[in-house]
Amino acid sequence: MAKYEELMESIITQINDGVWEIGEKLPSLRKQTQISGLSLMTVLNAYQALESQGVIVSHSRSGYVVAPKIIQPAYKRTNPDFEAIEKVDINDIIFDVLQNSRRPNLINFGSVYPDASLYPRAQINRSLANAARTMPASAMIDNFPPGNEDLRHIISQRYAAQGMSVSPDEIVITSGALEGLNLCLQAVTTPGDWVIVESPSFYGSLQSLQKLGLRALSIHTHPQTGIDLKALEVALKSHNVKACWLMTNHQNPMGFTLPDENKQQLSRLLSKHKVYLIEDDVYHELYAGSKKPLPTKAFDHRDMTLHCSSFSKSLVAGFRIGWVAAGAKAEQIQKLQLMSTMAASAPMQLALTNYLTTRSYETHLRLLRKTLAQRKFALWKVLNEHMPKYVKINYSEGGYFIWVELPEHIDARYLYSASLEKNISIAPGAMFSLTKQFQNCFRLNSSFECNEKHIKAIKTLADLIVELNKNAPK
Amino acid sequence: MAKYEELMESIITQINDGVWEIGEKLPSLRKQTQISGLSLMTVLNAYQALESQGVIVSHSRSGYVVAPKIIQPAYKRTNPDFEAIEKVDINDIIFDVLQNSRRPNLINFGSVYPDASLYPRAQINRSLANAARTMPASAMIDNFPPGNEDLRHIISQRYAAQGMSVSPDEIVITSGALEGLNLCLQAVTTPGDWVIVESPSFYGSLQSLQKLGLRALSIHTHPQTGIDLKALEVALKSHNVKACWLMTNHQNPMGFTLPDENKQQLSRLLSKHKVYLIEDDVYHELYAGSKKPLPTKAFDHRDMTLHCSSFSKSLVAGFRIGWVAAGAKAEQIQKLQLMSTMAASAPMQLALTNYLTTRSYETHLRLLRKTLAQRKFALWKVLNEHMPKYVKINYSEGGYFIWVELPEHIDARYLYSASLEKNISIAPGAMFSLTKQFQNCFRLNSSFECNEKHIKAIKTLADLIVELNKNAPK
Repeated sequence: MAKYEELMESIITQINDGVWEIGEKLPSLRKQTQISGLSLMTVLNAYQALESQGVIVSHSRSGYVVAPKIIQPAYKRTNPDFEAIEKVDINDIIFDVLQNSRRPNLINFGSVYPDASLYPRAQINRSLANAARTMPASAMIDNFPPGNEDLRHIISQRYAAQGMSVSPDEIVITSGALEGLNLCLQAVTTPGDWVIVESPSFYGSLQSLQKLGLRALSIHTHPQTGIDLKALEVALKSHNVKACWLMTNHQNPMGFTLPDENKQQLSRLLSKHKVYLIEDDVYHELYAGSKKPLPTKAFDHRDMTLHCSSFSKSLVAGFRIGWVAAGAKAEQIQKLQLMSTMAASAPMQLALTNYLTTRSYETHLRLLRKTLAQRKFALWKVLNEHMPKYVKINYSEGGYFIWVELPEHIDARYLYSASLEKNISIAPGAMFSLTKQFQNCFRLNSSFECNEKHIKAIKTLADLIVELNKNAPK
Repeated sequence: MAKYEELMESIITQINDGVWEIGEKLPSLRKQTQISGLSLMTVLNAYQALESQGVIVSHSRSGYVVAPKIIQPAYKRTNPDFEAIEKVDINDIIFDVLQNSRRPNLINFGSVYPDASLYPRAQINRSLANAARTMPASAMIDNFPPGNEDLRHIISQRYAAQGMSVSPDEIVITSGALEGLNLCLQAVTTPGDWVIVESPSFYGSLQSLQKLGLRALSIHTHPQTGIDLKALEVALKSHNVKACWLMTNHQNPMGFTLPDENKQQLSRLLSKHKVYLIEDDVYHELYAGSKKPLPTKAFDHRDMTLHCSSFSKSLVAGFRIGWVAAGAKAEQIQKLQLMSTMAASAPMQLALTNYLTTRSYETHLRLLRKTLAQRKFALWKVLNEHMPKYVKINYSEGGYFIWVELPEHIDARYLYSASLEKNISIAPGAMFSLTKQFQNCFRLNSSFECNEKHIKAIKTLADLIVELNKNAPK
């Protein structure tokens, strides 16, 4: 065992023994070298390894603190492993929540976007102005799939930085990741086909299934480890499945990231059954720790993964620019796009290309990740302080969602309505599932600075929950 | 009969008698006042009325000339009136033609867009830069359907200028007209439904039908008067039709504009059979003469018309901003959009709003219309001069398409391939039909300045046609 590993073990033992409690600060690097007699480099290695394992979290102002991961609430395994849904019919609450998110002065815990002030708006606007000044006439007329060549090159190089070889030729620029995901689903299914989705899952996948007349296999999904691979295998064996739509990193709404071995196994399972994976990876830049998680596509050797992402969560919302890395399906995706929206907006593609080539995206991302991690942790602490004991708060590393479970008899839609009256929004669990399983849950957006106003809003939510718990039928 | 009408009649008689031949200049306004002894105003009224009837065309440099409309080639009526197509399967040539349109230095007669130099690019770019400078953070995050409020207001006011009352609340901003059209078709059909289309029609409608698993009733359509209303009625009575997708003004590919009485009758027929009209009106600003044609929606009193348009053909391509005036279906369209692409790009909406409120769109449009009319007429003359006599050239007022018919035994796809080798593109008829009926036709884009290079290209096309006519199996 290396010296840094010995140090790691001893720290983990200390945490388990209660020497360091959740949220508490570990000895600083300098202090730890004095305590352990190890070199600064060894201590740093140990701390970084602990961080990448999610045991501790780094905070610029307070050094390293013990992560909440260790005391996750016990997860109740439900039966059955999966549910087969013949007719996908997702309710109107999604539309309602999104429309209400536009209210002025709303405390927007229900928002799907990060705090707008975290985007590098001045730089983005300068890139847009630059694109406007230099845009050739041809850029407007030649605006057909697969999209801007320079932009596809940059995206290809970002895959290469993760050790993946994705040719610019297999990348198609789309009107946001959502268009890409929809086109992929169209490309590999026909109406009536079975498609695997997570439960709970991003509502966009459920809406797409409904729109395309597809049938859903809704698979049991764990708030920390993601889709249940055993249940997935059973579903694959019992149904003629055509596609599987998953979010593998910082999943919306639960927040988990699939471990690499699960991604590998997932890819192997799907390939074996000749099922395409439509991988929604829009939060991939928002990881915690030091290493960007790989997509499942990195483990796929049979070109069965259509990998979709965008810049909407990490750089700028509202541009509506995403992409698909579609392998051999790229041409079919282009043809489908030509039929749907023709192409993504040309100036938006040029502006992004300008930003990515002339500004420091990495510097922005580093700051964004750090801020999101700090804010998530801060909100988690406030929740733990103010929520009644029977409320379970799921903490996950990366992204900016916290998944909250109320007692089973409380429908979070009531909490949604009641809190909206007090100008606070949440995203109720009913948005994310075709079954009634998650009606007692809701998703919180932790990307906003947790100031007095937000703490007060959390207290209000807690009061409403106490009220609902009293009055709800049991 | 008013004095100006008497003058009109005498001019029409003279044209019919061969006093003034096609393309020949009429006496100038001043000269005509001397000849007729009428006031300048009366002469102007007569000339303008003749222009709006398509009898003469105004050209800035050469005054008023006799329009080609009068000598349209005889149109051969085909049987049957309509064809029922159970499985829509449009060929790959569309993708091929669009991809090839990006070749450098191509003489792009096959293009669907007007000459890029006709767009007010400098002004548009200034508006985009302005939007970039002033864009609030909220514009990016609040970017949900139905789209920018100011932009919807402006569009609503443009309808009002035509005497139509379309509330901003029933307008949804989309990613180009194509997205709008697709969402409308989804809103009013389910897979397997019958949908009426023109024959020939804009290929986008055929692709949408295929994508959504719909069945097509392809209705006989006349190159000057549009869809055959008798055939339409027979089809409506014999099939359970759910929607009808038409282009009523300056139709792509033929170029005709439905007369008002046909629009009225069309709307009445469809309402009677409770069939939604999806009206594709992307060329509406490009009219000839002095009066903007009304859409069929203006004649609809039962809210059965979903009117789709965009700025792509009249102001700027590549922005991908269109709209639907959807009446009571507006909310459903918004929900479908949320599932498909979420929303149209926010900065693009802001830039267009800035342009439309601070620049002179009308001044641009007047110049654009005049230039397009002159160029269309110029190309028509060149075609008449160089094409073999057995080639029929359909002239229509407005827009920028000329529809050409080769002898029936020549498949225009061969002409397409052969001309592409000489760096000239055309849009072959096979792109626009589910039947083989228009394989001997092709569409030409007349928006480019007809210079030496273009005249040479037309001569090359003519030579290739002569060659094909010799070698084709008869």
